[in-house]
Amino acid sequence: MTEVNVALIGYAIMGRAHSNAYRQVVPFFAPRVRPRMKVLCGRSRGGVEEAARRLGWDEASTNWEAVVARPDVHLVDIVTPGDSHAKIAIAAARAGKVVFCEKPLANSVPEAERMLAAVNKAGVLHMLCHNYRRAPAVMLAKQLIAGGELGELRHYRGTYLQEWLTDPARPRTWRLDKSRAGSGALGDLGSHSVDLARFLVGEISEVAGHMTTFVRRRPLPDAPRRTAPVTVDDAATALVRFENGAMGTIEATRMAPGRKNHNRFEINGSRGSVAFDLERMNELELYLESDRRAVRGFRRILVTDTNHPFLKAWWPPGHILGYEHTFTHTVFDLMEAIASGTLPEPNFIDGVRNQRVLSAIEKAARTKRWVAV
Amino acid sequence: MTEVNVALIGYAIMGRAHSNAYRQVVPFFAPRVRPRMKVLCGRSRGGVEEAARRLGWDEASTNWEAVVARPDVHLVDIVTPGDSHAKIAIAAARAGKVVFCEKPLANSVPEAERMLAAVNKAGVLHMLCHNYRRAPAVMLAKQLIAGGELGELRHYRGTYLQEWLTDPARPRTWRLDKSRAGSGALGDLGSHSVDLARFLVGEISEVAGHMTTFVRRRPLPDAPRRTAPVTVDDAATALVRFENGAMGTIEATRMAPGRKNHNRFEINGSRGSVAFDLERMNELELYLESDRRAVRGFRRILVTDTNHPFLKAWWPPGHILGYEHTFTHTVFDLMEAIASGTLPEPNFIDGVRNQRVLSAIEKAARTKRWVAV
Amino acid sequence: MTEVNVALIGYAIMGRAHSNAYRQVVPFFAPRVRPRMKVLCGRSRGGVEEAARRLGWDEASTNWEAVVARPDVHLVDIVTPGDSHAKIAIAAARAGKVVFCEKPLANSVPEAERMLAAVNKAGVLHMLCHNYRRAPAVMLAKQLIAGGELGELRHYRGTYLQEWLTDPARPRTWRLDKSRAGSGALGDLGSHSVDLARFLVGEISEVAGHMTTFVRRRPLPDAPRRTAPVTVDDAATALVRFENGAMGTIEATRMAPGRKNHNRFEINGSRGSVAFDLERMNELELYLESDRRAVRGFRRILVTDTNHPFLKAWWPPGHILGYEHTFTHTVFDLMEAIASGTLPEPNFIDGVRNQRVLSAIEKAARTKRWVAV
Amino acid sequence: MTEVNVALIGYAIMGRAHSNAYRQVVPFFAPRVRPRMKVLCGRSRGGVEEAARRLGWDEASTNWEAVVARPDVHLVDIVTPGDSHAKIAIAAARAGKVVFCEKPLANSVPEAERMLAAVNKAGVLHMLCHNYRRAPAVMLAKQLIAGGELGELRHYRGTYLQEWLTDPARPRTWRLDKSRAGSGALGDLGSHSVDLARFLVGEISEVAGHMTTFVRRRPLPDAPRRTAPVTVDDAATALVRFENGAMGTIEATRMAPGRKNHNRFEINGSRGSVAFDLERMNELELYLESDRRAVRGFRRILVTDTNHPFLKAWWPPGHILGYEHTFTHTVFDLMEAIASGTLPEPNFIDGVRNQRVLSAIEKAARTKRWVAV
Repeated sequence: MTEVNVALIGYAIMGRAHSNAYRQVVPFFAPRVRPRMKVLCGRSRGGVEEAARRLGWDEASTNWEAVVARPDVHLVDIVTPGDSHAKIAIAAARAGKVVFCEKPLANSVPEAERMLAAVNKAGVLHMLCHNYRRAPAVMLAKQLIAGGELGELRHYRGTYLQEWLTDPARPRTWRLDKSRAGSGALGDLGSHSVDLARFLVGEISEVAGHMTTFVRRRPLPDAPRRTAPVTVDDAATALVRFENGAMGTIEATRMAPGRKNHNRFEINGSRGSVAFDLERMNELELYLESDRRAVRGFRRILVTDTNHPFLKAWWPPGHILGYEHTFTHTVFDLMEAIASGTLPEPNFIDGVRNQRVLSAIEKAARTKRWVAV
Repeated sequence: MTEVNVALIGYAIMGRAHSNAYRQVVPFFAPRVRPRMKVLCGRSRGGVEEAARRLGWDEASTNWEAVVARPDVHLVDIVTPGDSHAKIAIAAARAGKVVFCEKPLANSVPEAERMLAAVNKAGVLHMLCHNYRRAPAVMLAKQLIAGGELGELRHYRGTYLQEWLTDPARPRTWRLDKSRAGSGALGDLGSHSVDLARFLVGEISEVAGHMTTFVRRRPLPDAPRRTAPVTVDDAATALVRFENGAMGTIEATRMAPGRKNHNRFEINGSRGSVAFDLERMNELELYLESDRRAVRGFRRILVTDTNHPFLKAWWPPGHILGYEHTFTHTVFDLMEAIASGTLPEPNFIDGVRNQRVLSAIEKAARTKRWVAV
Repeated sequence: MTEVNVALIGYAIMGRAHSNAYRQVVPFFAPRVRPRMKVLCGRSRGGVEEAARRLGWDEASTNWEAVVARPDVHLVDIVTPGDSHAKIAIAAARAGKVVFCEKPLANSVPEAERMLAAVNKAGVLHMLCHNYRRAPAVMLAKQLIAGGELGELRHYRGTYLQEWLTDPARPRTWRLDKSRAGSGALGDLGSHSVDLARFLVGEISEVAGHMTTFVRRRPLPDAPRRTAPVTVDDAATALVRFENGAMGTIEATRMAPGRKNHNRFEINGSRGSVAFDLERMNELELYLESDRRAVRGFRRILVTDTNHPFLKAWWPPGHILGYEHTFTHTVFDLMEAIASGTLPEPNFIDGVRNQRVLSAIEKAARTKRWVAV
Repeated sequence: MTEVNVALIGYAIMGRAHSNAYRQVVPFFAPRVRPRMKVLCGRSRGGVEEAARRLGWDEASTNWEAVVARPDVHLVDIVTPGDSHAKIAIAAARAGKVVFCEKPLANSVPEAERMLAAVNKAGVLHMLCHNYRRAPAVMLAKQLIAGGELGELRHYRGTYLQEWLTDPARPRTWRLDKSRAGSGALGDLGSHSVDLARFLVGEISEVAGHMTTFVRRRPLPDAPRRTAPVTVDDAATALVRFENGAMGTIEATRMAPGRKNHNRFEINGSRGSVAFDLERMNELELYLESDRRAVRGFRRILVTDTNHPFLKAWWPPGHILGYEHTFTHTVFDLMEAIASGTLPEPNFIDGVRNQRVLSAIEKAARTKRWVAV
């Protein structure tokens, strides 16, 4: 097989980001197996057809069950809201497809566990899309940590701050309804911080938590004079303990004016520190105790050198990448995993573990006690 | 009275900082009452005499009890280690002196409460030295918040990170011995974050906590081949809930490589945000929702304008201040309070409240539950 | 016509960047006319065929003369080295094609003038690719200036610093040979600073200049033991006077360690200032005198809002763009110009004017006098 | 001699800064010889007496000629406007005093040369106060360059930008009158950039220049309805060639909104780069080619370590210094020079050379040609 036929379920923003990745991976990365943009699925006939045309898909469909069952589909990519992940992923696994799913894996731990069980039972490859792992600067941080350059890790400080709910006049969309969205800032943003923590520092063993909804009622999108309750968190904070002895804080909010997409972490080890901010995605700050004392300082590394992760495929040094490149990197690694028949990372195992951490934070916030993951 | 005779008890780093403030306040601020550097107290005869000469004190003494009782001493300034604050402050209060004390006020809540009771009973003025309140950028933040420019406050993010204990070969001084130091990073650094939280956001009502000692034994200063246990925390984190509904995180560590003196806070309100970092003490970052949308962004305000707090006394705009200026500002306000007979802030009331927060964090960390302050 | 058949001459880095723009403009911008990637031209049969396949071109050719003459080609895009721009562009113009040409337009003023005469005579549309004009932050700066928000312009400070020739062991490629490259840092990098100066501030009337070649001989690429002379400049600086009375400095170098792609400008007007750095392409720094005095400061605007130039087509606020997006924006505007039959900017008129400024700087450096443009 | 009796001529801002240095040098640096603040001179009886009292001088005088002749005065410090430097310095030299003079040394080259001749003839020590040399970060840059860590120097980029004349309503004080001030931005600000260039890179051999007065008439300070011509430059730019082959740009302006005190330089050598900005005076940015390639980046060094220049005398690492500390460092080195009988730097020789560079820039701007220094 040198071509993988892809079915993409969903075509909102994440649909555009994944479509772009399939388009871009071939000219820039020349993967051993190439994705073919076979069919795009959605609920609205007109919408999905227009999107398929514009985004470059061969076909459009409104019947995901039929698509998932098609023999000429090899890979099912799920970018729908969280409450439909499980049923689609399980069906795809049963049909023997490679399953690629947007984060968070599911809206609850049991759902996530059922998804993992399904892919395991079917023996299919699976991948979870936590695209920020594959920002080159994050990958460089990983390499430095894996190479021992930070020594023993002690602190993780993860914040994912956005501002779009600051204004109480913002409508109460489905994202603010717990029955559909699962959770608020914690699941949407905090799950990224948890993934980066697990990727870079290690497994989290215990948490304390705090969750708040600052604006408790908001106008309905279609009837702005009426309001409805917000049933998810606007913001969440947590203290975390890692299995390896490191300690950390995690914070997610949608109410931090000026923080557009402030997915930031800092890690301190016994020999050095790194810091990253998604708003300056092409940079990594690094401090090394091994530098000569008089000239020690945080270095701003512009992670665009041809010897940096993924960069050889793009432009000369100093020419920065954008947000969507992280998806292209993810799809490239997925294609390579398919070519070699190995399980990519992160995958549904990570999805389950991530969900357990989020769930523990929710419980800890509710019970006002530390909770083991 | 146009001159206040000061007795300073202690002459280590804080002694130097306070001495400098007394020297500098007159030429730069021309306070209505002027401090006279009367007598410096310390335990070592040779040491205190040399220090008095160099720092500009009229006299030196090794007997603080006698000094505190002298009728020609009006103000007792205490910069000794925390375990002697209470006895000196109480004696000074009983002798009718103005009492000025370095933070943290005491090593425990009961001690702090006894100190407060003593100054109240004696009816003397008292002040606690939390010098960072009087960094001009912090004062500007306070003005903006008080003026409602940030709207309703929602988030406080306070970190005080240092690096000096990163290396496990650093000796186990008295600062790492709980019986003498009271606590570690929490009391030393975290108390600043708590003070700034209380000053800028409001009273803290409830906390969760986490404290760790990463390096459990260290070489003795005088016998480096032998080690002794470290009985204080190397690092502490907390989740906090404010009475006004805001939520926050507080972190203090002495093990963050590259963070020399990273006393940082960020506050997000419903109409804007501010951020401050002591390593760039002359700057305040400010984001205002009221700016026109296309040109919104965090402003780096170089807080050196003649209309900024305390700046008229110093240099033309753009000429920055240093660390020790914060003490000069504190002493100026103390002198003005003495001149007008009003209680300055922060004072022993703040010291007691701060101690209660620290104590609650310790208890929360120990019991693994949220604890009311 | 709803589809424009494109012939791209050249397939090195700029060929990749332009190909990407043609691929991306449709899904993200839905232009009224769509580019069709018809034929890719190059000198090596194997190379051009492999590139066409990978980059998504319908056909490959090694005969640009034949391609330019094809009736089914509507647009000729030239990304070859500068010494072949003129002959290709003139042939394309004579054949009635839209001509799109990489900067610098030519290697000399007379060449550039002949190209402009050719497109004028043929009455065809023409565009010069100075992609950085269409970085959203640069466009925002343009809007602010055009709206009078900076007042009367007084200062332009343009530096384009790179580092890749720092090491004297770097080989002496054709780029360092004046007979082929035309010039060194001045034409390659300085031409961008000149374009941004003209775009944002106005026409340059007079210049002083300084050009240096720090490393005068370098090893030959194919025979590293032998060296050849470097006949272009490693670095160039200039003082410039604008027609509107503003003054400026321009600097270009390939020998600034740490400056990967430091294309920076700062503009000061009577009411405010802006600053931009290509390494942080998504940010614009803005200072406004009209802000309330106590809170004035440079704002870091993250130019990723949906109301910022070109951003509506991409991602939600806070999700940054990369280097190649500037080409997509350029191609979008070219497509819209074709759709409406209007001359896009910058075009060959700008190319001629830019070349005259560069030529004046060279002459000023040689004669050690100010030279009128 | 263990005490040096100082006479300070002038008590405006520089008088405050020098007074502060004399006060602070003893407690912090314990120099081998100590300055005694003997007498302060000024023209207004009331003003100088009040200033002497406040700033801590033993005596006040309105007769500088008499003061300079007093046998009990050892050091004459001149902080008057530039047009009176020569007469005071020459009188002081003839009287055998150590002469310490604020920059710029004089208003013209011949004046500066006469001052140098006078101190040479008298055989007295002399020093020029270019205080920014002794910012610790600048000193660190000097050490790195002297140690060869930047390799062969190639580029100097010096800008000193301020904003205070942006508003055309600012009055036309004596500083804007050439007959009294000598020159405008060039002499006031550009002289600092020239001094740093000479200190860090080497002697300047040749210059091109450009000077502009944007606002040609301004209201009189005492009669705001009337205006008078501005006869000095608002802004000046220069291209410079160094004797060692490096090239540079220098710019000074008082019309850059947002730039409060932006005295910035960047130096690029064959092995690394440094950059400094006075608004962040405690930081030095450093890039080293010798760092491992994947982790190269500009380091932000917080120059506050006890092993950094002058820092041992102040506070623990991470506690920043302010503007006036640079004067204290200068006075410390002057005291040490007096103690050892050696000529401090910079001195009148530097003053003459600096003035020659400024004069060459003026001539180059006037004649529109490069001018040898």
